[in-house]
Amino acid sequence: MTAAIFGLGLIGGSFALALRDHGIAGDIVGVDASAENAAKALELGLVDRIATHDEAVEQADLIVLATPVDVTPILATRILNRVRASQTVMDMGSIKEELCEVIEQHPARGRFVATHPMWGTEFSGPAAAQHGAFTGRTTVICDRELSAPDALGAVEAIWARVGSPVIYMSAAEQDLHAAYISHISHITSFALALTVLEKEREEEHIFDLAGGGFESTVRLAKSSPDTWLPIFAGNKYNVLDVLREHIHQLQILRRMLERNDREGLRAAMQKANTIKRILP
Amino acid sequence: MTAAIFGLGLIGGSFALALRDHGIAGDIVGVDASAENAAKALELGLVDRIATHDEAVEQADLIVLATPVDVTPILATRILNRVRASQTVMDMGSIKEELCEVIEQHPARGRFVATHPMWGTEFSGPAAAQHGAFTGRTTVICDRELSAPDALGAVEAIWARVGSPVIYMSAAEQDLHAAYISHISHITSFALALTVLEKEREEEHIFDLAGGGFESTVRLAKSSPDTWLPIFAGNKYNVLDVLREHIHQLQILRRMLERNDREGLRAAMQKANTIKRILP
Repeated sequence: MTAAIFGLGLIGGSFALALRDHGIAGDIVGVDASAENAAKALELGLVDRIATHDEAVEQADLIVLATPVDVTPILATRILNRVRASQTVMDMGSIKEELCEVIEQHPARGRFVATHPMWGTEFSGPAAAQHGAFTGRTTVICDRELSAPDALGAVEAIWARVGSPVIYMSAAEQDLHAAYISHISHITSFALALTVLEKEREEEHIFDLAGGGFESTVRLAKSSPDTWLPIFAGNKYNVLDVLREHIHQLQILRRMLERNDREGLRAAMQKANTIKRILP
Repeated sequence: MTAAIFGLGLIGGSFALALRDHGIAGDIVGVDASAENAAKALELGLVDRIATHDEAVEQADLIVLATPVDVTPILATRILNRVRASQTVMDMGSIKEELCEVIEQHPARGRFVATHPMWGTEFSGPAAAQHGAFTGRTTVICDRELSAPDALGAVEAIWARVGSPVIYMSAAEQDLHAAYISHISHITSFALALTVLEKEREEEHIFDLAGGGFESTVRLAKSSPDTWLPIFAGNKYNVLDVLREHIHQLQILRRMLERNDREGLRAAMQKANTIKRILP
């Protein structure tokens, strides 16, 4: 099978590797708006060849959109305008509501399968692509009832071969969950990095002291604004909702510490500890 | 050499393993306020034997305090009251200002070396102890000029053998740095866990979606209140200072998102990205 990957960054590049590693695609075509990224992806062997948008849509059995989420809705529409009944189109973006709304009434909507594999790192670009990226991580498929059974089945079979368990939600549900599980963690990391950069002057010491929990909470602050600005903007109301609640929780902890309310702090920390139930 | 470890939890247990693994102590005595913890540490082979406070102080060449930070100042004083010139006492706590103030004028202050190895996990108790825990992580030694040269040299030699590079600060500096590098990350994780627990009802989905950055930022929310409440309370003014700045940074990001200020968000994320310089 021939697969075309639009967007040869962390996610698209890693998916190209997964398609090859699991024997899913024998021929992988890459498309990227950046000639530099495309050349790098080819050099790294992520894809077999680079093609234009039109060539890729013409030739591929499977068309994969791994572009920034603000680019995806229009790109998906352009591709659906020309897609054949034998082709399947899937995306891998972190938000889905706008995308699914834009393509909702498209006559070829059935060829499209909206997926969000729950994997990523703070790195970006083709050089960040990894083997084994999605294996063992859950993938969300959204609005499955709007995909044609054969297209849905093809995408489910791919995730099964990659070793990614699939769960199903509406696009609206997925965007809410992603805000809680992924987007807020990124916002918090950006803010933590800014906090330390703002207040801390002896950077040498920051570096030396990085073992105390800082690395794991601030790691995501290295993430690319090109990826994350469209996600935050596209999921604005969910992200704001979670962000307000998070600031509120921080203010409660702050007030308890100010007032030396040890019992309150202990109770809050014990409640937070129950996250163990769901994150073993 | 005989070492006595007071406090057989994550830190004390891991340090006992390091002392043995690096051939530093041939005889390791454990002391713990909890008979259950003591029995578990013995069963796990972290220590060779369990002793009373008095026996341990009598017999040990090196006395290590790995107790909760609110216990350490009084315990240190009681031990210094009886320490001999051939003995060295060190602690491993996350905060130092109160401790160093309490023992400052003690006639045996020179026998004490205040250290903070920058290592930890979200787990606690003897069963959480790990081999290789401190190797490659920095250790802070505080107020070194107040330790006798031989006591300081003995502790420096231990960290050198364990493979932990040592840096030096005043107790006040260390508490400020620890607030930025470690304590704020823990507060944020607790608050993030509370945010998700407060707002999210479909726990099954939290579990399934845990790949999106959530694990790394929320991991520390599993940490023990017995360890962390005394740290936050004991470093109250530094923690409040960092916490206020962190909430301020989150509010700035929130307002930019509310106003669709993409340029502002991009600039903030790009600034946060510069954390790469110091956290490669």
